[in-house]
Amino acid sequence: MKVNGKNYETIWLKPEDERIVQIIDQQFLPFKFVIADLCSVDDVSEAIRSMSVRGAPLIGAAGAFGVYLATIQTTSDHELIKAADLLKSSRPTAVNLSYAVDRALNEIVPEKSREGKMRAAKSFALKLCEEEKEYCRMIGEFGLPVIKEISMRKKEAVVNILTHCNAGWLASIDYGTALAPVYLAHDNGIKVHVWVDETRPRNQGSRLTAWELLQHGVPHTIIADNCGGHLMQRGLVDMVIVGSDRTTTNGDVANKTGTYLKALAAFHNNIPFYAAFPSSSIDWNINDGIPEIPIEQRDSGELKYIEGCKNGKIEKVLIAPEQSQALNYAFDVTPSQFITALITERGICKPDKHGILNLFRERIKNEG
Amino acid sequence: MKVNGKNYETIWLKPEDERIVQIIDQQFLPFKFVIADLCSVDDVSEAIRSMSVRGAPLIGAAGAFGVYLATIQTTSDHELIKAADLLKSSRPTAVNLSYAVDRALNEIVPEKSREGKMRAAKSFALKLCEEEKEYCRMIGEFGLPVIKEISMRKKEAVVNILTHCNAGWLASIDYGTALAPVYLAHDNGIKVHVWVDETRPRNQGSRLTAWELLQHGVPHTIIADNCGGHLMQRGLVDMVIVGSDRTTTNGDVANKTGTYLKALAAFHNNIPFYAAFPSSSIDWNINDGIPEIPIEQRDSGELKYIEGCKNGKIEKVLIAPEQSQALNYAFDVTPSQFITALITERGICKPDKHGILNLFRERIKNEG
Repeated sequence: MKVNGKNYETIWLKPEDERIVQIIDQQFLPFKFVIADLCSVDDVSEAIRSMSVRGAPLIGAAGAFGVYLATIQTTSDHELIKAADLLKSSRPTAVNLSYAVDRALNEIVPEKSREGKMRAAKSFALKLCEEEKEYCRMIGEFGLPVIKEISMRKKEAVVNILTHCNAGWLASIDYGTALAPVYLAHDNGIKVHVWVDETRPRNQGSRLTAWELLQHGVPHTIIADNCGGHLMQRGLVDMVIVGSDRTTTNGDVANKTGTYLKALAAFHNNIPFYAAFPSSSIDWNINDGIPEIPIEQRDSGELKYIEGCKNGKIEKVLIAPEQSQALNYAFDVTPSQFITALITERGICKPDKHGILNLFRERIKNEG
Repeated sequence: MKVNGKNYETIWLKPEDERIVQIIDQQFLPFKFVIADLCSVDDVSEAIRSMSVRGAPLIGAAGAFGVYLATIQTTSDHELIKAADLLKSSRPTAVNLSYAVDRALNEIVPEKSREGKMRAAKSFALKLCEEEKEYCRMIGEFGLPVIKEISMRKKEAVVNILTHCNAGWLASIDYGTALAPVYLAHDNGIKVHVWVDETRPRNQGSRLTAWELLQHGVPHTIIADNCGGHLMQRGLVDMVIVGSDRTTTNGDVANKTGTYLKALAAFHNNIPFYAAFPSSSIDWNINDGIPEIPIEQRDSGELKYIEGCKNGKIEKVLIAPEQSQALNYAFDVTPSQFITALITERGICKPDKHGILNLFRERIKNEG
C-alpha cells in the first residue's frame, strides 16, 4: 500500500544488506513514519513484544525472519531451537507466530551448512510473506461481494463498516485482513465509510487504522470503543468486520480485547459480524476458544500511561492515579454463535467445524 | 467523603461569602485537587459544560445553585428564565439538570423582592443538596443487601463489582449512586473489589472513580472499557452496578456511552446488572429510551486529544491523526431487558413500569 505516494510493505530485507530486516516501526505511527533495522533474534523478539510489529500475519512473518537472523548468528541446532522458543514466547495469543517459527525451523533442519540454513530460512521467510500477501488479497476478493451486496441493498448509499483494532495492511504484509475487502470495495467505487474503534489501551484503531485509511483516502471516523453499541442501536452500522489472532476449529475467534462486546451488540441489533483472517490464524489443535486460547496479559502501564504528540514531540503522560492498579488483558474470545461468517483466502464459511473444513478439505483426514 | 482525611462534599456555598458557590474542579483530578469559585450563571453553565462538575445528581444541584447566582445578578423574571434556559442547555442528557432548574424557578417565581428570590433560591439549592445526599445514602442502604448476599454465597470471598464511568460521590453531593452500596459494604467489612472501567473518552473511571476509591481505601483495578466482557466470560465479575443520567418509566437507562455493551455482556454471562440512581434521574415523561432520550454529542477533540500528567504538569497531547474525524456520543441507552433491577432511594425494583410505580405510588395518578 502507499505511504505518501510510495509503495510499502510492512517488513522486508534491507536492499543494501540482506542480513538486516527492515520494518515500519509502528510504535511511532501516526506521529512519525520510522523505518527500523532488525539485526538479531533479540531485535525481532523485542520488536514483537513492544509491538513495533503487530498483527497476527505480520508477527508470523517477523517470526520467520527472526529464524533467518538466527541462522546468521549460529549454526548450532540447540541455539536455533532456543532462538525459536524466544521468538514464539514474544507474544502468546496469535497462533501465526508459533506456526511460522515452527515451519521455518522445519525448513532449516535438513540443511547442514550455515549457508544452507541461511538460504532455506531466508527463502522461507520471503515465501511466507508472498503467501500471506496473496491470502490477504484473496480475503479482499471474497469479502468484496459482502460489501457490494449491502451497497446494492442500500441503493448505493454509503456502507458503514465498523472495525476494531487494526486488521489493515499494517497488521499483515500488505492489503490487510479485515480491511482488505474495504480497500477493494473503495477501489471499486463502492461508497464505504469506516467506524474506527479507538481500541484501548494501545489505540491501534485511532493510531494505525485511521492512519492507513487516511493514506488510502478511505472515509472514516474514529469513535470510542464504548460508542459502537449506540451506533448499532441507531442503525448507523451496516456490518462489522474484524481480524483474528487465533480461530478455533469450532469458529471461536480470539481478537483484540473488546471484539466480543462488539459482536454481542451486532448480534442484538441484527448486524452481520465478520471475522476475516488467513488460514495461518486457524489453530487446528483447538476446538473451544474460551478455555483453550491463551490470553496475553500485557503491562498495566499501557493503561495508566499514554503516548501522544505535542509540538511534534512524542510524550508519555500519566492518565490515572499512580497508586491504582490496572489489569491489561490484550485479547478476548468471541464465541462463534455471535459471528455471521468467517472470510478466509479460500472463501467464506459459517463459523463452525463443518464450514471451516469444507474450505480446508485437506484437513479432514487429520480431524477425522 | 474524605479527601486526604478531610470531609468534603462536591459543591457548597463559600463560607466567607455566600454569594459564591464552590466546587471540587473535577477537570484536574486525579492530578490536582482544585477548589474553584463559581460567581455567576455563566460560571456554572461553563463548569457543567466543561465537566468541572459532572454526574447527574451533581449537575442538578449545580443547576439549582446557578439559579441562585442568577437571583443575585438580576430581578427580571425574563432574565431569570433566560438564565434557567442557559443552565438547562449546558448538557442535554441527564434529566436531573432541567428538573432541578425548573424546580428552582418555581420556588422563586412567587417571590417579588430580590432578597426574597435570593433567599428562596438559596434555600432550595441547599435543600436539594440535602435531599440528594439522603437519597444517595438510602441507595447505599438498599444496595447493601445485594452485595451482602453475593458475599454470603461466595462464603465471604471477595465480591468483584464492575462499574462504568463515575457514579461515586464525585458524581453526586456525597456517598455516590452506584458506589454508595459499595462504600457501605466496604465500611461494613464485606470484602469488595471494584473493576473500574476506564470510560473513554473522558476517562471518568480511571481518573475519578479510581481516585475516590483510593481515597476511601477500597480495593480496585482499572481496566480498559474493552476488557469487561473477557472478565465476565472468565467468571471474574460477580455483579455490575452503574449510575443513570436518565431512566424512563419503562426502565430503560441512559448512562455513559459503553454501559449498554457491559449490560449485554452481563446478560450473556448471567451476571446481575444494576442501575442505581435517585428518583431525580427518572424522566416521568418518557417511556421508551432509544427514540426519546436526547444523546449528547460532545467535541471530537475529547477523542483525539488527551490530558495527562508529566513531571507534575498537566499536558494535553494528540493521540490520533490530526486529519481524521472523530465522533463523540457521550451516552447510550441500555434497554430494560438487560437490567436485573433498579436501585433507588425508595428501594429496589424490576426495571419496568409496574416496578417503578410500585416504589413511587404518588405517580400512579399522573400515569393513569
